[in-house]
Amino acid sequence: MTVEIIPVHGLPEVRPGADLSALVAGAAGLRDGDVLVVTHKIVSKSEGRIVALSGVEPSPFARQFAAEHGKDPRQTEVVLRESRRIVKMDRGVLITETHHGFVCANAGVDASNVPGEDEVCLLPLDPDASAARLHAALRDRLGITVPVVVSDSFGRPWREGITNVALGVAGMRPLADYRGQTDPHGYPLEASILAVADELASAAELVVGKTSAVPLAIVRNYGYEPGGGSGAELVMSPDKDLFR
Amino acid sequence: MTVEIIPVHGLPEVRPGADLSALVAGAAGLRDGDVLVVTHKIVSKSEGRIVALSGVEPSPFARQFAAEHGKDPRQTEVVLRESRRIVKMDRGVLITETHHGFVCANAGVDASNVPGEDEVCLLPLDPDASAARLHAALRDRLGITVPVVVSDSFGRPWREGITNVALGVAGMRPLADYRGQTDPHGYPLEASILAVADELASAAELVVGKTSAVPLAIVRNYGYEPGGGSGAELVMSPDKDLFR
Repeated sequence: MTVEIIPVHGLPEVRPGADLSALVAGAAGLRDGDVLVVTHKIVSKSEGRIVALSGVEPSPFARQFAAEHGKDPRQTEVVLRESRRIVKMDRGVLITETHHGFVCANAGVDASNVPGEDEVCLLPLDPDASAARLHAALRDRLGITVPVVVSDSFGRPWREGITNVALGVAGMRPLADYRGQTDPHGYPLEASILAVADELASAAELVVGKTSAVPLAIVRNYGYEPGGGSGAELVMSPDKDLFR
Repeated sequence: MTVEIIPVHGLPEVRPGADLSALVAGAAGLRDGDVLVVTHKIVSKSEGRIVALSGVEPSPFARQFAAEHGKDPRQTEVVLRESRRIVKMDRGVLITETHHGFVCANAGVDASNVPGEDEVCLLPLDPDASAARLHAALRDRLGITVPVVVSDSFGRPWREGITNVALGVAGMRPLADYRGQTDPHGYPLEASILAVADELASAAELVVGKTSAVPLAIVRNYGYEPGGGSGAELVMSPDKDLFR
């Protein structure tokens, strides 16, 4: 079946405390069985995950790195506070592991698409909880089941460019596990666990873009696997990770 | 605009020497401006990139690794021959850099979806050339411009599951560069080069799947940036790569 990726226009600027489900329900023609992909930024904004840099006192470590690489030391300080581990710190790039376990540049702290000149946006505190809240609120409000993916753009080793991935997931399985199944020739599919929530996030990015002010997309007709599921399942556990 | 991801059914088993453009033109209702995403396997098959393991003599190094981890030493030998560098060799997992520069498990050598019991499939020798040939042949045959993405599923550090990425690209820019543009609030988008060809490959995977014998998908209404472009541009150059 043809899968449709539908951009959602007309969402107002999201302010701290905004009821995201009301905004989404008003702007999007959601149907039962759609998957909703929401860029994390509007989730973070609604949750007040915005920091005014004027109130941040940078540590000596943040000052030193920022001075060396022409960065704002207060923003570097926020990145460090959002991190539990520095993965790479080289050539002015700061790749850290966030408190959630995501490995990304600048702990996901970002100044784009934030209204205040002096403000930066953090990742949601618990993107799975954010996704679950929106999933439940859309069910209450509209009486339909809509899995929710909260996304962000991450870089990755070895490949150029960033792609959208799923930080939070609710209402669907984020991984499609083909192990135990066979291909059309009867060969067992061993290494085939697909990160479909990440693929949904990437597909949504094709209509969302960076400058178009479209912070959400509907994926229609995708045969998702219902059930409990989380973005945390997409974070590789340290004992399995060869690149730790 | 709504982007459509359309699965293409009815492609026959592809044999070495097959004219892929004829098969694709016959099976897919392609239109001018569509993007065609083709899983590398049918490209590799049409190009004869299939190896019969019965003819492979494993090296002592391949024998040793295979014995230790319960693998077929002949298949390990093929993986080593397709590699120019071993990136990680740990817990039975062999992640290598292929001669193209792709970093992936087993150099992309795979026994699934191959008809012969004793056969494995390699990546295309030059996926960009494969994409360019198909792109040109579809123009000749149908008189339409259809960018082509040749895809495969790769794992990645830090995250569970595999996602589809673009190995070869023709007829479009694989990266969307937002640098120099600003967000709706006027903030410059610095770190925003999106790997849209990878996102197209991931989007296509949502309808392709692993067991459904759908080796290609059409992406319709995606506003790609026309022009010369290659999958090679998605391979990070060693001097920029922090994870080398």
